[in-house]
Amino acid sequence: MNFTGSNILSVNQFDRDSIDYIFSVADKMQPYARRKTRTRVLDGAILGNLFFEPSTRTRVSFGTAFNLLGGEVRETTGMESSAIAKGESLYDTARVLSSYSDVIAMRHPKSGSVREFAEGSRVPVINGGDGANEHPTQALLDLYTIQKELAYHQQSIDNMHICMIGDLKYGRTVHSLSTLLSMYKNIKFTLISPRELSMPGSVLDTLENAGHRVTVTEKVDGIVDADIVYQTRIQQERFASPEDADQYRGKFRLNQDIYTKHYKPNTVIMHPLPRDSRAEANELDNDLNQNPNLAIFRQADNGVLIRMALFALTLGVVDQVDKHQCEVNWYSEKSQQ
Amino acid sequence: MNFTGSNILSVNQFDRDSIDYIFSVADKMQPYARRKTRTRVLDGAILGNLFFEPSTRTRVSFGTAFNLLGGEVRETTGMESSAIAKGESLYDTARVLSSYSDVIAMRHPKSGSVREFAEGSRVPVINGGDGANEHPTQALLDLYTIQKELAYHQQSIDNMHICMIGDLKYGRTVHSLSTLLSMYKNIKFTLISPRELSMPGSVLDTLENAGHRVTVTEKVDGIVDADIVYQTRIQQERFASPEDADQYRGKFRLNQDIYTKHYKPNTVIMHPLPRDSRAEANELDNDLNQNPNLAIFRQADNGVLIRMALFALTLGVVDQVDKHQCEVNWYSEKSQQ
Amino acid sequence: MNFTGSNILSVNQFDRDSIDYIFSVADKMQPYARRKTRTRVLDGAILGNLFFEPSTRTRVSFGTAFNLLGGEVRETTGMESSAIAKGESLYDTARVLSSYSDVIAMRHPKSGSVREFAEGSRVPVINGGDGANEHPTQALLDLYTIQKELAYHQQSIDNMHICMIGDLKYGRTVHSLSTLLSMYKNIKFTLISPRELSMPGSVLDTLENAGHRVTVTEKVDGIVDADIVYQTRIQQERFASPEDADQYRGKFRLNQDIYTKHYKPNTVIMHPLPRDSRAEANELDNDLNQNPNLAIFRQADNGVLIRMALFALTLGVVDQVDKHQCEVNWYSEKSQQ
Repeated sequence: MNFTGSNILSVNQFDRDSIDYIFSVADKMQPYARRKTRTRVLDGAILGNLFFEPSTRTRVSFGTAFNLLGGEVRETTGMESSAIAKGESLYDTARVLSSYSDVIAMRHPKSGSVREFAEGSRVPVINGGDGANEHPTQALLDLYTIQKELAYHQQSIDNMHICMIGDLKYGRTVHSLSTLLSMYKNIKFTLISPRELSMPGSVLDTLENAGHRVTVTEKVDGIVDADIVYQTRIQQERFASPEDADQYRGKFRLNQDIYTKHYKPNTVIMHPLPRDSRAEANELDNDLNQNPNLAIFRQADNGVLIRMALFALTLGVVDQVDKHQCEVNWYSEKSQQ
Repeated sequence: MNFTGSNILSVNQFDRDSIDYIFSVADKMQPYARRKTRTRVLDGAILGNLFFEPSTRTRVSFGTAFNLLGGEVRETTGMESSAIAKGESLYDTARVLSSYSDVIAMRHPKSGSVREFAEGSRVPVINGGDGANEHPTQALLDLYTIQKELAYHQQSIDNMHICMIGDLKYGRTVHSLSTLLSMYKNIKFTLISPRELSMPGSVLDTLENAGHRVTVTEKVDGIVDADIVYQTRIQQERFASPEDADQYRGKFRLNQDIYTKHYKPNTVIMHPLPRDSRAEANELDNDLNQNPNLAIFRQADNGVLIRMALFALTLGVVDQVDKHQCEVNWYSEKSQQ
Repeated sequence: MNFTGSNILSVNQFDRDSIDYIFSVADKMQPYARRKTRTRVLDGAILGNLFFEPSTRTRVSFGTAFNLLGGEVRETTGMESSAIAKGESLYDTARVLSSYSDVIAMRHPKSGSVREFAEGSRVPVINGGDGANEHPTQALLDLYTIQKELAYHQQSIDNMHICMIGDLKYGRTVHSLSTLLSMYKNIKFTLISPRELSMPGSVLDTLENAGHRVTVTEKVDGIVDADIVYQTRIQQERFASPEDADQYRGKFRLNQDIYTKHYKPNTVIMHPLPRDSRAEANELDNDLNQNPNLAIFRQADNGVLIRMALFALTLGVVDQVDKHQCEVNWYSEKSQQ
């Protein structure tokens, strides 16, 4: 398995073995991400962090991951690129910008744009989200989090029960995560959403063809016995009326009281973030913040590990990371997170 | 005195001893800021430079200060953070973004927001300005500049005479600076402003309770015998009519001719910057640029020293800065500034 | 010849010797730009990359060039600088921002602004484009590309035949390039444009006074026997009507078929980029992308070399670049470009 020089464009390019390999590399990144030690393996390498659409967390996460391996980051933010506005093709943009960097992380509002860009690029390209299409590093960090959280409770992805709740129609994260999960064995999926926002048939087919047990429902009762609950954001505009949206939210709201009464002990709560913390939305109440099974911030932490792993893999330095270790001089609370 | 792991949120958290200590650390930063030598003490550390409001000088000053200690900088600028727009709480934003960095410098338009953010952060947070509330690094650099400028003339903050001129009602810099100065002894304050823009009673109380001599006036004559003149920006919209604003500006304008005729020799001129250089405003005329007592650009230089000191303190590396020295290879005019 | 501490503001500041020297330094940068080796000569130095106007490629190219020499980059993008909006003079902005960096690259929409800024700066300033006025690093990279491309075919700039096509009236790149070329010997210039967009008389005078042969024409036939064809963008708004613009484009379009039939073998095709790749514009068809004489992406690559050279020169480290070499650990395709 060799990712050196490869693009990371879609979850479809992975098989079970390659995922296990990526995750083993992510595990190796832990002491560096937690500032226990430091590496300069990518000293002098430049990440082109090209975000043609506003984003803070994903953009900064890629940049931080690259810095933690010792590299430098050059960025674009927003559609400042007047070149594209002036009719420049993505091929040209790629040819030029790839001459400035050693690897590129890219987000763009247009579906398929990152693949098109990658064809012109002279360096590996990692998809940071191309419109409604793909966001593979999010799917990988979600899967990695599931594996870690279950392992903590001596469980595995094979044979688990996962509930996905909310907007399962438009949410690209649940689609990509489902694709990755389809490679595992005997998973029970409970897919809870209003009918108008239910999981697309193509995803259901993938899951069922892979032999998983799938229940599609509008009832939140399905949550009983779940090992993982993956909650997503609901946007009011997806509903016929604000009242419909309110009714939905009333049904699927999760807080500590509901968790205690209706959930299995140690059910892990996930969310792709940002969560809407306003009272009228409140898909995950703030009173869950002290719940040790709320994994949403560990998801963000794991995003750095996954992105470090992908940089180390595409730049072919996995075996050299540890050789370029150096001391950490400063105070950091990272080890206590 | 140990700031390791602490937030820097407000001038109210300091006492006289802690200020003296911060300033002694700032003094140590001088050779690094002037590029006489270089340190890599923060090699591998990451500053999250989070400016949720446009700013160039403060943002770049924080970033430069961190680079000069050997660290890397990741940034957000403006309200690009769609997460916040989507209803994410500052707590959530802080939990996530603090997992990407070792210390955070933050500016936000909302009063109190930086403290709220700090509660969710897993790393120390330095307030870079939260609306009308606080901008503690500005207050510290102002105070540090006053101390340095007076020391150059064999004077001290104790027993000095400072004039503050302009918008003393809305200017957060003069409020915070006054709070810091209240910890010194026997200062004469002359506070010159139109009545509508005079210093708030709470600040006056603080100064008088600390035993300082305070004169509140609309007359610019009070400037005679001042050791420090701290001029501020006046915004036209603060006045009933443009004519009122013009009248005000006519009275408080300062240029070299007025300085020579009416000021004590060596009166130090300060301003929080930016100064309005347009003819109609002209709070400090450009013909003062050659005046050796115009300290406004030394204020900006000192801002780098103060921010370097705060990073070294919060990350607990004060004693290690010199141990990680290395050579400066390139040409720099910094030493001649 | 010593550029240490100098500003790079205009092509007019160079003579033939200084250009030859800059190009010899650019040649030295090749192994670093191609990631064959790495240097840390500018370790700890800070570039102030101040773009007061949107730009991706030029801004990133400057930043990458500085990183490749081992330095750090602090940036402003757009007119976020509210200070300038509040009436701050460029002198003040320069005094302050130059205290944060060791060299500045600056773009600004106003003609003459970079020179004005440089007067207040305490560090060298490199002009990255000041409105319609100058963009000297583009002119240098164009000239450097011409020299390299001709050398590959055992030719020289002296005695060559260059065609410039398109908007020769408003294009600052063709003006600056012509100024530089006027220092060489016995060049044949064929200047092809619609009459309304023809080369200004002042540039024609410069070329003719320097003894070059100049033909001004609207006919594309002049292209026969050209060694270099420098194509530029046409903006529709420059024409009386869209039909006029279309007619023009129809005449001057270049694709592989036209190249094969009408051009001399090995005619080098250049363009300042971005090229408009939309079908209705199509000044250089995408089917030329496989043509080995399409030099447009090598121009972008050469931009990094030129900017590295200018940083090494203005910071006085030309002789030290090789002394601070270190190993490249990661995979890069740069060497195959």
